[in-house]
Amino acid sequence: MSSTPFPVSADQRYFESYEVGGVVRFGSVEVTQEEIIAFGTRFDPQSFHVDPEAARQSPFGGLIASGWHTAGLMMRLLTDHYLSSVAAMGSPGIDELRWLAPVRPGDRLSLRVTVREAVPSRSKPDRGLIRSFIEVLNQNEVVVMTLVAMLLVGRRPA
Amino acid sequence: MSSTPFPVSADQRYFESYEVGGVVRFGSVEVTQEEIIAFGTRFDPQSFHVDPEAARQSPFGGLIASGWHTAGLMMRLLTDHYLSSVAAMGSPGIDELRWLAPVRPGDRLSLRVTVREAVPSRSKPDRGLIRSFIEVLNQNEVVVMTLVAMLLVGRRPA
Repeated sequence: MSSTPFPVSADQRYFESYEVGGVVRFGSVEVTQEEIIAFGTRFDPQSFHVDPEAARQSPFGGLIASGWHTAGLMMRLLTDHYLSSVAAMGSPGIDELRWLAPVRPGDRLSLRVTVREAVPSRSKPDRGLIRSFIEVLNQNEVVVMTLVAMLLVGRRPA
Repeated sequence: MSSTPFPVSADQRYFESYEVGGVVRFGSVEVTQEEIIAFGTRFDPQSFHVDPEAARQSPFGGLIASGWHTAGLMMRLLTDHYLSSVAAMGSPGIDELRWLAPVRPGDRLSLRVTVREAVPSRSKPDRGLIRSFIEVLNQNEVVVMTLVAMLLVGRRPA
């Protein structure tokens, strides 16, 4: 996976480092048929995720990754490049998760992340909430998945 | 995993089988420390998902499952018990995904699913959209995750 273009290194990245309107682009990660089938077998055993022959007969025309597998790969790219190694405090949730195009064996995924909002916590002065719009793109620049993520991030110590 | 209490067997379950207001409860699946670490290592390598000792020092007080792992286990319960084996056509997306309580090694998860809306497609008369509210509960009846899922389901052949 490529190194991050984020202007502040992960070990110095606090709530204050996420600038509203800022856009970063990073990745990538390859999607293999082996992992599509392994993930599908455990977590989403619908035929179009686990059986290449049945998938060919399906409306998808071939094996596609579980949408949750795509979400997992996105999370890996976020942890490798975007989340603060010192200040990330988890996520209360996700909004508007959309699967827009199939993800197939051999695809290579990358992310484009836009910070929409950065709100200091009123009740807990040591942290804030970052709301980011995340796009997952394939090697042809097709957007395959989008979502709005909430991230709790610690504030820079005084 | 236990058998489904859904009144119509999966091979006869079409769009028309999902009744608005209907609630079904099913599961379960156990969350193991081994799988928490394996999932985290591949998809969400934050210390509180992969390193039991670091997790003990974290605000979570111990190892917790990646929220995407919990989502994957929910999907497995849906595919085993809820989705139609003949008519499920994938999902355009998810709204209001919320991680409400930690999921820990040894937890046992089950689902409660409430059908909120069933809308026949205007453009494609062979299918409809089911909107369901899904709650993931642990063995103590604590709701650990909720979301609103959209499911495309084929209509019963005339």
